[in-house]
Amino acid sequence: MADIIVIGIAGGTGSGKTTITHEIERALGSDVTVITHDSYYRAHHELSYEERVLLNYDHPDSYDTEMIVRDIASLKRGEPIQCPIYDYTIYDRSEEFVTIEPSPVIIVEGIMIFHPEELRELMDIKVFVDADADVRILRRIVRDVKERGRSLDSVINQDLSTVKPMHEAFVEPSKRYADVIVPVGGQNVVALEMLLGRIQAHLRHS
Amino acid sequence: MADIIVIGIAGGTGSGKTTITHEIERALGSDVTVITHDSYYRAHHELSYEERVLLNYDHPDSYDTEMIVRDIASLKRGEPIQCPIYDYTIYDRSEEFVTIEPSPVIIVEGIMIFHPEELRELMDIKVFVDADADVRILRRIVRDVKERGRSLDSVINQDLSTVKPMHEAFVEPSKRYADVIVPVGGQNVVALEMLLGRIQAHLRHS
Repeated sequence: MADIIVIGIAGGTGSGKTTITHEIERALGSDVTVITHDSYYRAHHELSYEERVLLNYDHPDSYDTEMIVRDIASLKRGEPIQCPIYDYTIYDRSEEFVTIEPSPVIIVEGIMIFHPEELRELMDIKVFVDADADVRILRRIVRDVKERGRSLDSVINQDLSTVKPMHEAFVEPSKRYADVIVPVGGQNVVALEMLLGRIQAHLRHS
Repeated sequence: MADIIVIGIAGGTGSGKTTITHEIERALGSDVTVITHDSYYRAHHELSYEERVLLNYDHPDSYDTEMIVRDIASLKRGEPIQCPIYDYTIYDRSEEFVTIEPSPVIIVEGIMIFHPEELRELMDIKVFVDADADVRILRRIVRDVKERGRSLDSVINQDLSTVKPMHEAFVEPSKRYADVIVPVGGQNVVALEMLLGRIQAHLRHS
């Protein structure tokens, strides 16, 4: 494959980055492959379930950076990968993988993707989707409480104890590596059109 | 003229917005017309030179919003305008105007262009060029002291007494109206390509 472009879409939880990613997929179809950083949570077969539950999954060390870097580099060279599947019910990587074929546009999506330098360096376009912290927590409350049946207390507790401190320590500072910052995340039609304009220019020339 | 797109490029002084504007002009040539907000500083023929010197030119009220809104609306309808010329040597609008013909892409550039709602509403794409405050003041020192022969003291004094407070009161809050925020202003090739991609998509369809 001649020319493959890698686009990183980062942003805090509830920022709207998944919405933007879906809109790009919807507009460009099979030209786009999406790699979710969360698929690359580290395997912890050596730990018990009780030990795995206690790990901090909002810290950059919880991701298998070596593996995602190797896989994105493979896709960039036009080679298929075996993408891991993370099993949230057991807090561990499952034994299964999914084969992902390369395509002209690779999107890497995740909260922490701009943190590791080796991962950042594989990206041709780095987009940070931004929203105010209060808007983001309200979206998460709607999603986790109303749609996923979690208790309000558990969402609040998790936010204040890990999500917010980790956001401020690792996600917010990684914004400075972005090429563009997209405010008002998911509903930002103008930013989406700009991004699509750039991708389509790439597709025409590749 | 069928379809005219208006792009606002805002950002603090020293942010790199003029560089981005020039790069777009260089890439698209005669398809682009640039309107500088500073051309629309209010006329103050009723005041003496000494009185005009004392006005605060970093406040949104120093701009003739009614006139720029009328002119951008005319360009958007495909009608030529008589753009005012501001004479910095006398701190007043000169008696001369320059005729500006409409083109498929109109760029409105200035520090305060997202502040007036009527002006904002005429823009199809709103870009805020961003840079850290220390980087911006260092660029201004280089420009004003080294290139324009001003004293360091006068630049520092003007910055702390009006530029910085007005930036924090009016420019920084107007960032929230942006569709995209472009960090590291002038040297941001990826953001420039995204913007050009979007404009070229418009030119192909208009």
